[in-house]
Amino acid sequence: MAADYNERIVIWGVKMKQSKQVAANFLSSNPWVVSEESFQTENNYLGETIFALGNGYIGMRGNFEEGYQGPKGTSLLGIYLNGFYESSPIQYGEIAYGYAKNYQTMLNVTNSKIIELEVDGEKFNLFSGKILKYYRELNMQTGILTREIIWASKSGKQLKITIKRVVSLINKHLAAIQYQVTPLNFSGKIKLISGLDTAVTNQKCEDDPRVGSAFKGQVLKLVDKKITNDYSAVKQKTTTTQFELACAMSNEILKASFQKTQLEEEQKIFEIFNIDGKQDETITLTKWISYFTSIDYPQNDLFILSEQTIQEAKQKGFNSLLVDQKAYLADFWKHSEIQIVGDLALEQGLRFNQFHLLQSVGKDGKTSIASKGVTGEGYEGHYFWDTESFVLPSFLYTKPEIAKQLLMYRYNTLDKARERARQMSYSKGALYAWRTINGEECSAYYPAGTAQYHINADIIQALKLYIEATSDIDFLLNYGAEMLFETARLWASLGDFIPSKENKFCVNCVTGPDEYTAIVNNNFYTNMMAQSHLYYAYKIATLLQEEHPLQFSQITKKIQLEIKEITNWQQAAEKMYLPYDEKLKIHPQDDTFLQKKKWDFESVPKENYPLLLHYHPLVIYRYQVCKQADVIMADFWFGNKISLADKQRDYDYYEPITTHDSSLSPCCFSIMASEVGYCTKAYDYFMQTARLDLDNLHHNSEHGIHAANMAGAWMCMAFGFAGMRTYEGFLSFSPILPDAWQAYRLTINFQNRLINVNVNENTIIFNLLKGSSLRIECFSKPITLQINIPSIVERYIGAELPV
Amino acid sequence: MAADYNERIVIWGVKMKQSKQVAANFLSSNPWVVSEESFQTENNYLGETIFALGNGYIGMRGNFEEGYQGPKGTSLLGIYLNGFYESSPIQYGEIAYGYAKNYQTMLNVTNSKIIELEVDGEKFNLFSGKILKYYRELNMQTGILTREIIWASKSGKQLKITIKRVVSLINKHLAAIQYQVTPLNFSGKIKLISGLDTAVTNQKCEDDPRVGSAFKGQVLKLVDKKITNDYSAVKQKTTTTQFELACAMSNEILKASFQKTQLEEEQKIFEIFNIDGKQDETITLTKWISYFTSIDYPQNDLFILSEQTIQEAKQKGFNSLLVDQKAYLADFWKHSEIQIVGDLALEQGLRFNQFHLLQSVGKDGKTSIASKGVTGEGYEGHYFWDTESFVLPSFLYTKPEIAKQLLMYRYNTLDKARERARQMSYSKGALYAWRTINGEECSAYYPAGTAQYHINADIIQALKLYIEATSDIDFLLNYGAEMLFETARLWASLGDFIPSKENKFCVNCVTGPDEYTAIVNNNFYTNMMAQSHLYYAYKIATLLQEEHPLQFSQITKKIQLEIKEITNWQQAAEKMYLPYDEKLKIHPQDDTFLQKKKWDFESVPKENYPLLLHYHPLVIYRYQVCKQADVIMADFWFGNKISLADKQRDYDYYEPITTHDSSLSPCCFSIMASEVGYCTKAYDYFMQTARLDLDNLHHNSEHGIHAANMAGAWMCMAFGFAGMRTYEGFLSFSPILPDAWQAYRLTINFQNRLINVNVNENTIIFNLLKGSSLRIECFSKPITLQINIPSIVERYIGAELPV
Repeated sequence: MAADYNERIVIWGVKMKQSKQVAANFLSSNPWVVSEESFQTENNYLGETIFALGNGYIGMRGNFEEGYQGPKGTSLLGIYLNGFYESSPIQYGEIAYGYAKNYQTMLNVTNSKIIELEVDGEKFNLFSGKILKYYRELNMQTGILTREIIWASKSGKQLKITIKRVVSLINKHLAAIQYQVTPLNFSGKIKLISGLDTAVTNQKCEDDPRVGSAFKGQVLKLVDKKITNDYSAVKQKTTTTQFELACAMSNEILKASFQKTQLEEEQKIFEIFNIDGKQDETITLTKWISYFTSIDYPQNDLFILSEQTIQEAKQKGFNSLLVDQKAYLADFWKHSEIQIVGDLALEQGLRFNQFHLLQSVGKDGKTSIASKGVTGEGYEGHYFWDTESFVLPSFLYTKPEIAKQLLMYRYNTLDKARERARQMSYSKGALYAWRTINGEECSAYYPAGTAQYHINADIIQALKLYIEATSDIDFLLNYGAEMLFETARLWASLGDFIPSKENKFCVNCVTGPDEYTAIVNNNFYTNMMAQSHLYYAYKIATLLQEEHPLQFSQITKKIQLEIKEITNWQQAAEKMYLPYDEKLKIHPQDDTFLQKKKWDFESVPKENYPLLLHYHPLVIYRYQVCKQADVIMADFWFGNKISLADKQRDYDYYEPITTHDSSLSPCCFSIMASEVGYCTKAYDYFMQTARLDLDNLHHNSEHGIHAANMAGAWMCMAFGFAGMRTYEGFLSFSPILPDAWQAYRLTINFQNRLINVNVNENTIIFNLLKGSSLRIECFSKPITLQINIPSIVERYIGAELPV
Repeated sequence: MAADYNERIVIWGVKMKQSKQVAANFLSSNPWVVSEESFQTENNYLGETIFALGNGYIGMRGNFEEGYQGPKGTSLLGIYLNGFYESSPIQYGEIAYGYAKNYQTMLNVTNSKIIELEVDGEKFNLFSGKILKYYRELNMQTGILTREIIWASKSGKQLKITIKRVVSLINKHLAAIQYQVTPLNFSGKIKLISGLDTAVTNQKCEDDPRVGSAFKGQVLKLVDKKITNDYSAVKQKTTTTQFELACAMSNEILKASFQKTQLEEEQKIFEIFNIDGKQDETITLTKWISYFTSIDYPQNDLFILSEQTIQEAKQKGFNSLLVDQKAYLADFWKHSEIQIVGDLALEQGLRFNQFHLLQSVGKDGKTSIASKGVTGEGYEGHYFWDTESFVLPSFLYTKPEIAKQLLMYRYNTLDKARERARQMSYSKGALYAWRTINGEECSAYYPAGTAQYHINADIIQALKLYIEATSDIDFLLNYGAEMLFETARLWASLGDFIPSKENKFCVNCVTGPDEYTAIVNNNFYTNMMAQSHLYYAYKIATLLQEEHPLQFSQITKKIQLEIKEITNWQQAAEKMYLPYDEKLKIHPQDDTFLQKKKWDFESVPKENYPLLLHYHPLVIYRYQVCKQADVIMADFWFGNKISLADKQRDYDYYEPITTHDSSLSPCCFSIMASEVGYCTKAYDYFMQTARLDLDNLHHNSEHGIHAANMAGAWMCMAFGFAGMRTYEGFLSFSPILPDAWQAYRLTINFQNRLINVNVNENTIIFNLLKGSSLRIECFSKPITLQINIPSIVERYIGAELPV
């Protein structure tokens, strides 16, 4: 390991060159703010994603309160609740035994954003009258989405409209909108209409397998309404899952005289305020919104809880909500500081990513984080391996309590994973679903679904990192060990000691992370992960047996674990077959990968990417072409077991044949480029991640954020540029500084310490902000961090070595 | 080759042991007859398949004229027209580029069998009154299905009912029923009701992926009726394919006075005859039936053609139909003689198979033969590789004009194969559909569908055999060469010279015949077939260039074939990678087959077979377990290129890991067991084929016959026991005689000669029944056959060699 780092530094002796600068969207002079200065129809769809608010449970796309009157295909009206779904049978062209049975689709729920404004019978919207001023900003320090408009009606009446929207990060059931109207050149009647609309449907998109739901038309049925003087609520229900959802609102008008009426339409409820507007006097409507579902609470309590939540919030007031929100975020940013000196756009991008991850991630142990968070319907709100392999590390080293909740979600769905293992004919163990909401397998294409058994090891890798970074033995004893052992059992059944492979432990018929190759033997990544998984299971079993015999015996009794199984895990790990090509001195992606022809990149036109939309799987599968990082990911996670020379050769081999058609890929290549000394490449790949959604680099961010990529950008900073590793639970760094930057800083949470890492042109300064002293390494050199005493390391430690 | 045969004879020095005898159903003392002596509800469903009639176009299941009143699930009312289908979009759980778009489903068409009988208001059926006698037989020499019943009504009136049903083998549009009633103990009113019913649907079966259609409910809509004095017809239409179908009937009563009325119900037409019945006087109703569709003729002509056909048939009369039918069959059996002396049940089984193949096979160049023929709805009436690899050889060496029509079907769908190649991103060439009716790919599971590229080579193998056996150069010039070159192009694009495989020509990501292993590299069967295909394409191109330059230039111009392509075919064939395991000295099924664990046959219970109904594909794929013959088939087709020792080792290796879950498997194992000297096994496997449907060995013959297995039984006789081969177009035999048999005979049609092969205990007698003298070999010894001069070969030629 030490040798590697020294070698690495030699390469870095050559100073990094600055690469291209991207044209940044939504940029503000304040890197904590994402903003737009004018309304453009063509930006609307994307803007709805960018300005989405969420709290890991409620997700509200940045739709306008007044509705949207633009052309078809330029908007998606959406509010989602993480984990709230309907299911429907999967229709297969040709069914086979053991196929996933049902789709699960995160539902678009009651639209509670509606606040319409009417003057002289003319409704305010961005396509009517005249927009004299427009400004929208998402402030990532306050957690408030603000819109300011000066609008002139057709009859020339001018109004200033200021709207603040908040989705509470403290109470997952709560959201609020403060809607302020000021008549600028008149006094007169102003009508505000606040509503709840239950006639909502999910999107249908038939062109792209990655977007669109199984449902046509309305799924949620209105089953109940409740209307009191100052509180209105609706109850909706799904047909198959029989989930109920209550959505409530309460509207308050301040500083104005008004008449209030309530109006019920078939699927809608409105509260209508006729207000006596006075020139230059601001009318303030505060709309309180809550969502509760039967997944969390008894059906009969949903209305009661909604009302209570709203009443409590009202009593505390809107300002109190803003104060709490800001305090929550102050704590979050203290733990998640990330700053690039000299590049505002990147700094904004990184913060935007962290902020959206916080908004998207389930924190209740019953939900996880979907590929698109709660900002869109792509991938139907499903959780994938993205959670553990990308998102979780970014929280683990900043807000580990969130990482813990993500692991709790897996523990809470362990029974479903056990069921899946039985369906796959394994009499023991657990197999986690490739894509799911409630834990059941929802992948309708097993070659790039169930065959990606590595999901089991990805989860355990996250568990291992969590335990190493937190020493949370209670979690291990109460939840982790059971998951660990049950999932380890699957490898033991799935793999075999194969005589013609020198009795090595082989794992056949699997698909690795790269989905442009499917159903192969001995995928290097999978086998490395399985080895680590099995060895960790063996190690923890041994440890618990010695140090926590009572709990160990309880676990083994619960899952009927036999000692010989543990021995078998050790043997399988030790004899794991790990493909290596002696001639090329690289790790083949699998047993037969190198025996395929390389994809003809030269003659395939650019518009034929992503390949999956232009070629039959059988065509793609028979070439050496990768959708995303595969071997490269193994080289990253197990960098201490692989020589730098091998890592570099792997990188050189796989980079030219990787299309990065998955947004999970560039971050991995950036990290490994940093490690093997390809500094320009590291920077270039990073630039594809940091602002992917803000700059809509994949041309599909309108469908929702790319959560894994957002976390990937953080990984590029920490694991890539800062060279952070936690091999065997020991923290080390090996930072580089891209030429384009003056400096960067990030704060790492590890073993209950907060460590600020500040990389300047000449030095690296470690500052222990919280916690007792800690031994770490920088460039393989030991350092002991002590509270508030900066440890300074020279940056060009390698310069002394021959170049 | 010679050495092999000598070796083989040594093994046969040990005389074959007789194996188990099966309990035979439907057995008659006449081996030309299949019969049942009583009606049993539990046999009804199967009986409908066994007693089905057909002519390769119309297929009529053996349903009763009076209808069926038995319990649900014991009957399938069905009439099918080969190639007449409706299509519907395939619904995929997860769609991907290039997937097959539409299902095609052979439709259950207008029910024309209806003849009801009423006495005293009581309708005759097998569940009412009393059955005093019941007999049904299918006579394979006359082509008539006869039913004889003596029935007593509840009021005690006894009637003798004799029904003869014929589906004309001469006119594909024609069928007829002769319904005779004789009052035995009374004189009085008898009512006969003859009908056409258009309210027909296909079967729906959700438990078994191999059965059932894409449709629920009625697909064919009634669009027109025509009723004249002595002719009634209906026209039905499909919605998507817009095919029209006319079905007509005409009813004649002989020797009785009657009143006739016509009745129209919404979807039905009836002609009702009220007849003055007289004791002991037979009333004869002859019902003429015709089917015409817009696939063959203009829509406006369908009624006219139906009427003409019926009128012509009526004029000639029912007896004339019987005479023609018998003459046709006499000629058929002359060319297809197959006889086992000493085993009536087997002889009956073999004839039953040949007869049903004749009834099922399309002979118009626009249709082929479906897996279930025209006897049921399993596999939706699709054509697979079964046609060329199993059924075609059985006709090629008996009625080669039928084999020619099967190849014509492929030529007529060559454009669809070209389209499919484009969908699969090949800019040149043609790829035949794995399963289809009209030529378009209908397989909704590509790993065991489109990935079975060997279909291209299977078709060309059949073409090669056809040209070798017939010297039909016209066919080659007009159709064959174009198919040959276009399909060869696909291998050239699909395979690659792979550096890490010593620049051998490798074919990656394919599925071989064994569907329990999918998407592998270098499937031995596929590569052997591709090699033969490419080499044949090169050879024929060279031949045509020299001997038919004008036509060759026309073909190359039409398909824009370049000379360098032909050279490339030769190179690919010469450098074809053919996996061989030096340690085991066997042919691995593919590059990684031997690196998988063997299936645990010991601990898997019997009820878990067929595996495909009890295990997820990913489970099956990761074991060494074969659904059916794979390497074994290559060893058979290319026996002259593989040593006997290798063939024997291959057999020894694959036999224990093959489940024979496909009915295409046992015949292949029987043939190769004969070749490598496993005489008992050859007999045992043959016993699984000869009476598979008659004895319902697979417990699903009620859904239709197993056409490929039927042909496989013939192959066991010719290629297996008689050891017939036609390597390089040269005919040879190497017969063995199972111990259980006294002798067997079969007639082979080769190069316009009819050769009778008679294998007795001591000798083999070849008799040239037709054609000029021919040089063949028996036990590698040359013989010259001359007309009507028996050539006698001693059977135990090997006995002289040391045992």
